[in-house]
Amino acid sequence: MPTHPLGGVFAPVLTPMRDDLIPDTAKWIALCKQLLADGCTGLAPFGTTSEANSLGIGERMEMLDALIEAGVPAAKLMPGTGMCAFPDTVALSAQAARLGCGGVLLLPPFYYKGVSDDGVFRAVAEVIERVGDNRLKVYLYNIPPIAVVGYSPAVIERLLAAYPGTVVGMKDSSGDWDYQKSVLEGFPGFDVFSGSERFLLANLRLSGVGTISAMANVIPDKIRSLYDNYLSANADQMQEELNRYREATRDYAAIAALKQIMARRTGDRAWLNLRPPLTNLSESAAEAMLTKFATA
Amino acid sequence: MPTHPLGGVFAPVLTPMRDDLIPDTAKWIALCKQLLADGCTGLAPFGTTSEANSLGIGERMEMLDALIEAGVPAAKLMPGTGMCAFPDTVALSAQAARLGCGGVLLLPPFYYKGVSDDGVFRAVAEVIERVGDNRLKVYLYNIPPIAVVGYSPAVIERLLAAYPGTVVGMKDSSGDWDYQKSVLEGFPGFDVFSGSERFLLANLRLSGVGTISAMANVIPDKIRSLYDNYLSANADQMQEELNRYREATRDYAAIAALKQIMARRTGDRAWLNLRPPLTNLSESAAEAMLTKFATA
Repeated sequence: MPTHPLGGVFAPVLTPMRDDLIPDTAKWIALCKQLLADGCTGLAPFGTTSEANSLGIGERMEMLDALIEAGVPAAKLMPGTGMCAFPDTVALSAQAARLGCGGVLLLPPFYYKGVSDDGVFRAVAEVIERVGDNRLKVYLYNIPPIAVVGYSPAVIERLLAAYPGTVVGMKDSSGDWDYQKSVLEGFPGFDVFSGSERFLLANLRLSGVGTISAMANVIPDKIRSLYDNYLSANADQMQEELNRYREATRDYAAIAALKQIMARRTGDRAWLNLRPPLTNLSESAAEAMLTKFATA
Repeated sequence: MPTHPLGGVFAPVLTPMRDDLIPDTAKWIALCKQLLADGCTGLAPFGTTSEANSLGIGERMEMLDALIEAGVPAAKLMPGTGMCAFPDTVALSAQAARLGCGGVLLLPPFYYKGVSDDGVFRAVAEVIERVGDNRLKVYLYNIPPIAVVGYSPAVIERLLAAYPGTVVGMKDSSGDWDYQKSVLEGFPGFDVFSGSERFLLANLRLSGVGTISAMANVIPDKIRSLYDNYLSANADQMQEELNRYREATRDYAAIAALKQIMARRTGDRAWLNLRPPLTNLSESAAEAMLTKFATA
């Protein structure tokens, strides 16, 4: 197996919705291609930022098919396939492996709370066993601030022992640098993406492989620059510049803020459509955020 | 509209799984019929206790069809139709309304956290609008200990104002009696089920309509007895008896414990099958729990 088959800057691609809240697949595919042209090394469609947990299994499967048919290289894709319901996770992960996706980003089942490490291990193990395809490359998606259920170091260790070559990495969106550092240091060769570009430089300095960052939807070039130049003398300065963009949006609901930026840039107000339970920023909050972002 | 079209003792029916973790629909239908014969006034399939959030939309739709085809009266059913993904919730709620189900039990979308009251309101409103069927009767499912996202009194008030005759009641599994009391007292005519039989007597004394209780899977007759006799002199004593059964299982994972009881009663070890991320009790924990339960 090559080292770091995937690495770099991935966007959890925003999902444009039509006014009837159906995903606008053509607009989505165009965004995917634009992001790759603008600096993303790969794409993580169906992430938290993609409102993917408001998308049904049929919607995700059709969109993934369409994206690859439209010519986006499957090898550059790491779709989110960890769904609430077990058979959905199996079906979507199997499809991704069959289509040659570079990896899948696997949320643990997130409805039941207080589940044991055994339960989380078994949830991942059953998916891998049922998919039964050695093309499957699993990146664990750790995001306890939202999913509540996460991956403990003990679970990572068991999964790496049981499924070497299949469980290959992680996106850590814990927001807890100490956790990410412990995974980076504790599991050499396990490919850790920072779930936020805020930790990109620190991640790369500890042999991490990059970032899967919501902000890569709107500043892919700047994040890619730091990724490409993290050994340069001004890397810290570049990280600080990225932090200013994050700072500009931090007081606002993240997905709504990013869709505001897309709407402003494109002049297309359909970008403001969000599936419930998410809601738009107020006009005044949006203006304030857009001003901060433009001057970051 | 009749007052209290539904009321009484509902079981969130356990879902028997085969060894390959596919729902055993025949065994499930038999359990549903047995529970109605044993004292349940109605059934709430696809609840938390049913492992429903590990079931896919296709599985739930097929099971609901099969249950009604097998002769269980749709009017006695309140299936859980609030799923993680918006189109799934719409599809299953529409099916339940079309089939004549007495109601649907609606979880709010539960992946995204920190959502606003506006977002929760809009999530329910969009489902009702899209189903567009005045046979739909919505019972809000409030279970913040697991779903994290819940229904605030302000959201209930807005929903009742916007959709009178459609939003008709609630199952409150908050475990917070003060919350349930405030809803019972604040919204006369809104049909509140206690999510635990622990509050059944208190619920009925404040004009609540009954309970949707996990324990109704195993002691439907005893819960029904209290429901039928809550005005009698020994009602408090009956409530205390119910509490002893709960006490016997409270130190154990609830769904695993109930499946242990089913396996012991029927001699059918397939009852122990659970979908991940849930896990079985250890043999020793199971024995200890079963002993406590048998002597409650």
